[in-house]
Amino acid sequence: MLRVAICGGSGYTGAELLRLLSGHKRVRVVAVTSERSAGKSPADLYGNLYAYRNLKFQPLRQEKLLERADLFFMALPHGASQAAVDFFYRSGKKVIDLSADFRLKDPLLYEQWYGVPHNFRGTLRRAVYGLPELGLRDKIKKATLIANPGCYPTGALLGLYPALKGGLVKKSSPIILDSKSGTSGAGRKANEEFAYCGVNEDLRAYAIGTHRHTPEIEQGIATITRTKTMVNFTPHLVPMDRGILSTIYLQLKNKTTLKEALGVFRKAYAREPFVRVLREGAYPSTKDVRGSNFCDIGLQVDSRTGTLVVVTAIDNLVKGASGAAVQNMNLMMGFKETTALEALGLNP
Amino acid sequence: MLRVAICGGSGYTGAELLRLLSGHKRVRVVAVTSERSAGKSPADLYGNLYAYRNLKFQPLRQEKLLERADLFFMALPHGASQAAVDFFYRSGKKVIDLSADFRLKDPLLYEQWYGVPHNFRGTLRRAVYGLPELGLRDKIKKATLIANPGCYPTGALLGLYPALKGGLVKKSSPIILDSKSGTSGAGRKANEEFAYCGVNEDLRAYAIGTHRHTPEIEQGIATITRTKTMVNFTPHLVPMDRGILSTIYLQLKNKTTLKEALGVFRKAYAREPFVRVLREGAYPSTKDVRGSNFCDIGLQVDSRTGTLVVVTAIDNLVKGASGAAVQNMNLMMGFKETTALEALGLNP
Amino acid sequence: MLRVAICGGSGYTGAELLRLLSGHKRVRVVAVTSERSAGKSPADLYGNLYAYRNLKFQPLRQEKLLERADLFFMALPHGASQAAVDFFYRSGKKVIDLSADFRLKDPLLYEQWYGVPHNFRGTLRRAVYGLPELGLRDKIKKATLIANPGCYPTGALLGLYPALKGGLVKKSSPIILDSKSGTSGAGRKANEEFAYCGVNEDLRAYAIGTHRHTPEIEQGIATITRTKTMVNFTPHLVPMDRGILSTIYLQLKNKTTLKEALGVFRKAYAREPFVRVLREGAYPSTKDVRGSNFCDIGLQVDSRTGTLVVVTAIDNLVKGASGAAVQNMNLMMGFKETTALEALGLNP
Amino acid sequence: MLRVAICGGSGYTGAELLRLLSGHKRVRVVAVTSERSAGKSPADLYGNLYAYRNLKFQPLRQEKLLERADLFFMALPHGASQAAVDFFYRSGKKVIDLSADFRLKDPLLYEQWYGVPHNFRGTLRRAVYGLPELGLRDKIKKATLIANPGCYPTGALLGLYPALKGGLVKKSSPIILDSKSGTSGAGRKANEEFAYCGVNEDLRAYAIGTHRHTPEIEQGIATITRTKTMVNFTPHLVPMDRGILSTIYLQLKNKTTLKEALGVFRKAYAREPFVRVLREGAYPSTKDVRGSNFCDIGLQVDSRTGTLVVVTAIDNLVKGASGAAVQNMNLMMGFKETTALEALGLNP
Repeated sequence: MLRVAICGGSGYTGAELLRLLSGHKRVRVVAVTSERSAGKSPADLYGNLYAYRNLKFQPLRQEKLLERADLFFMALPHGASQAAVDFFYRSGKKVIDLSADFRLKDPLLYEQWYGVPHNFRGTLRRAVYGLPELGLRDKIKKATLIANPGCYPTGALLGLYPALKGGLVKKSSPIILDSKSGTSGAGRKANEEFAYCGVNEDLRAYAIGTHRHTPEIEQGIATITRTKTMVNFTPHLVPMDRGILSTIYLQLKNKTTLKEALGVFRKAYAREPFVRVLREGAYPSTKDVRGSNFCDIGLQVDSRTGTLVVVTAIDNLVKGASGAAVQNMNLMMGFKETTALEALGLNP
Repeated sequence: MLRVAICGGSGYTGAELLRLLSGHKRVRVVAVTSERSAGKSPADLYGNLYAYRNLKFQPLRQEKLLERADLFFMALPHGASQAAVDFFYRSGKKVIDLSADFRLKDPLLYEQWYGVPHNFRGTLRRAVYGLPELGLRDKIKKATLIANPGCYPTGALLGLYPALKGGLVKKSSPIILDSKSGTSGAGRKANEEFAYCGVNEDLRAYAIGTHRHTPEIEQGIATITRTKTMVNFTPHLVPMDRGILSTIYLQLKNKTTLKEALGVFRKAYAREPFVRVLREGAYPSTKDVRGSNFCDIGLQVDSRTGTLVVVTAIDNLVKGASGAAVQNMNLMMGFKETTALEALGLNP
Repeated sequence: MLRVAICGGSGYTGAELLRLLSGHKRVRVVAVTSERSAGKSPADLYGNLYAYRNLKFQPLRQEKLLERADLFFMALPHGASQAAVDFFYRSGKKVIDLSADFRLKDPLLYEQWYGVPHNFRGTLRRAVYGLPELGLRDKIKKATLIANPGCYPTGALLGLYPALKGGLVKKSSPIILDSKSGTSGAGRKANEEFAYCGVNEDLRAYAIGTHRHTPEIEQGIATITRTKTMVNFTPHLVPMDRGILSTIYLQLKNKTTLKEALGVFRKAYAREPFVRVLREGAYPSTKDVRGSNFCDIGLQVDSRTGTLVVVTAIDNLVKGASGAAVQNMNLMMGFKETTALEALGLNP
Repeated sequence: MLRVAICGGSGYTGAELLRLLSGHKRVRVVAVTSERSAGKSPADLYGNLYAYRNLKFQPLRQEKLLERADLFFMALPHGASQAAVDFFYRSGKKVIDLSADFRLKDPLLYEQWYGVPHNFRGTLRRAVYGLPELGLRDKIKKATLIANPGCYPTGALLGLYPALKGGLVKKSSPIILDSKSGTSGAGRKANEEFAYCGVNEDLRAYAIGTHRHTPEIEQGIATITRTKTMVNFTPHLVPMDRGILSTIYLQLKNKTTLKEALGVFRKAYAREPFVRVLREGAYPSTKDVRGSNFCDIGLQVDSRTGTLVVVTAIDNLVKGASGAAVQNMNLMMGFKETTALEALGLNP
């Protein structure tokens, strides 16, 4: 039985980890930390987690926690995660960090976009980016520190990977990435902006060209193409709980038919348990992946403008966060990759 | 491996059966029928059911289907279900009928509320009402024909059972049942009334005092109390996908404290895997049971008016339909009662 | 041109007053106060109020404000409103108080339910309850201080008035009031409980038997019937922005047909510009009154249980708050009662 | 008093015309036609239109209707509108056509995208495109036949006009237009795809590169720039009733600051009553324009990729359909342009 601890477990990603792990027969959650909710149970905050009503949040005391668990899920805020991750990692524990702190390989880029310096560059170098579908599965299996990908980068990179790898796209032109996210992506916050009446029946763009996931996406692209490509990334807030739909606009290098493009995508993901390339003419729907670890992908070729439009759908809390973390844990531990992640989406 | 067939599988309850059964290791779905969608796959109608993309809907041919399956889930419309249920039942198959056709024991009452005569009275007498929590578990285990309860009656009767059984309630006074249902309760219909723009941001009552679930609830009460009690049942349509919240107003027989009332409820459901009586001061929330087979119950005693207010929450498609059907199947087959029903609710 | 000031104008009722008054040709908003948002414009908080972008919130300085306006809308929190209302009222200004501070005539009852003493009993005695449809129109016309009704009491009392006045109802039995409110009823708050992901796809009851609007409703009933009647009031939170649907369960005194009951209601409201009694068989829908000052009413007689079910729908921010306040202002000032309140509901 | 008739009035645009015209003091609606709903009242279909309960839908009999009205709003389906528009136009009546039939100036382009030939080319030549903000106000004032713009083209062209007119944009590169629409844009249909449970909590793209509004947008661009520019247009369906948010990606010709770009937009729309260019750093929100005739516009310059991102928000049923039609009527009739269109958006 693998003993896991969740540090920073009172937010949505923590709650989602608990939900998913409740179905994992080989894992036991031994501790959840939260400063603000210390003494409360996850079931007090999230009624669906009634089964955890005897587990209580505790303040994060690293030394005390160290020997109680074998693997640590870190769901602390960006910046706050660095030191704690470094501590558990250097103590020889397996760590999966859901924050952004170990995703950007270049510490200066991290400082530029996140506004704080990176103080653990040695550990940063050892972190493996946890998106197995990008040809990283073997690295993840051997890793002890995983930088779990951001929600937007997951949807974007899964849509970009086959197109870029397969050489379908003009290299010079910038990539337009128009993403739409459900509100849980903003996290559990007492904030008027994310109040029901502020989000419902509303739709808006935010952080155009300045969202912190931009360099993570560009780093992922550079890994695939070995060249530097700029992305214009425009996120939007949509009145729904879960789901990210990413519409990606790529300039085709040559004349390419939809069938050819689909062939490239199908081949790239033929053995992936969680990526579903839809049939010709079908586009993904966030509801079809809701609550599940799947990423659905649909394509269209607009021959009038020479554009390849790639649309991907994920559940931002599952494949975009906690589900990916469980998938990475399964790989690191030698469990079956799909354990506790087999549930189909909830529709309706 | 139990071979099951789903007759009338293109609606929401059919889709939900497929979703739940995809996680059941001892069951294989061998056939799904639908006249309208014959030739299509469940995955064509519900993208979340991608895993079933090679299964095709077929028209219902009873004789042809008979030998292919061991157990039949019947999700046909009311009225249309009678004959098919009778056929499979008399052929010696196990049958779980999700329609209303075998719920009312009195065929005249059935005719009065459903507008069609009941032509299979012998079979009707053998049907067991599939709500195990009402002290019916042993009967269900031995049954070969289950009348799966209606969604509103499930939420109502689980809230009423301990109060009535425990003698908390004045016998003479009518019961007020104010229920609120998500829109999936109306089924999958091409109907302007249930169009997005007709339901969203709207709330309305319907079928006040005339809803067909009324006699089913009253029959359930009579089974518990051995007396005839009238119910005023007012259903409402709420802008959400899933969930029924039932607010039940009962006149207390004696002075009763909230603690006492909670004690009665806790005792009644102490061993039930799917009923969760909430702590004092907490009321249930449909989101906490969404996608799960749980029924959450909260209470309040309004001593000013001598009223016991019982609030129950279920997912109408799970505990209110397909989850209950799987639970009944597990009981009939000697499987662990909770198999494939252990998932926690999806929140947020 | 009537000069009006809005004290406590940064919440939803303040914003709604600004929206409605923008269409009132005889009124000019000269000041809006808010401590927290001082220096900002209403347009900064509510983009729809772009037309007010040159008006800035200012801290409430009573003396300074006194001479600038002729009529004061008070939208301060309960408790905080008392002294300010008293000040403007005693200074000879017309005042419409949207808080609860001057609604309950009995200061002890106020203290019991609101937890603070009432320090302005003289002024309290002069306040007129601002629900013209309860036979109070003439009093309102002559009043200088209006206690603007609560949102739930408005929906409840408009449904109860004809039934009680017309003698349809058994006197002894308690009244069951099951109300469902959109989320704007909770006000504009930075609170996790009212975050989008905490409300969307969710339905729950709250404050069962303990909601502060209970004594206001019972006081209204006593005004109508001259007897004391208890109400069991159970409010619910519904995933929509606006609207209150109140389902009221009344025990009929005699056998009464639906036609007779509708006749009583139609007669009572024959000359009311904002109450619409629907045709037989129709029930109200919150969406049909959204953004408007109407109250829609539908009835059903359940002869099986001798229950009269009355359903009312209002927009909690309009007829349930700011629209009623404008209606009261129109009456007090001798304007046409419907001025700036003629817009039809927004559907879809 | 102008007498107007609405042909094809049972859909959402018809209902919205009735809602808006109820506030127009100089207009009387004398007739509404609908084949399917003949004999019913608009109030039977849309409870908010209670004020119209004595008006009944009638089948469209052109000759009979001709003399009863002075101006005809045509809200018939595409294809079906042609002949009726031609009839009323040639009979000397003022006509505002809300269908697509008279928008595309090239009848072959019309046939190519709509699949039916255009049989009234003479009348087509006289139709004036009803988007006054594109410098077309004077033409509209003199017109007797208006082709009312499509909902997507309105949001797109209002965002493109200043950028293209002001020469900010590279001519060669295609325009990427990513639009997101509320569900009322699909019209009032009995269709499972637009059922509540099919749209709620879901987000999807549709008709990528093939939507019929594409040539209308390209025609509008050609009018502005006098050159042919291709558009990749990807519409999305969003779980909300109303609103279109269009995110437009344009390649800047030269280095341009956000301030400069905003200056160009502000100047272009300085005198427009319905276009609101937001302050630097603010992006539009569909809720802020809900129920109103405004178009809100926000900008960002992404200097990393040389992209100008323009975001526009409209209410698809108002500025995107019926509000624009009333605005055009006001211009044609010499009424004040904003009559009956002054209401602020409904937020929350």
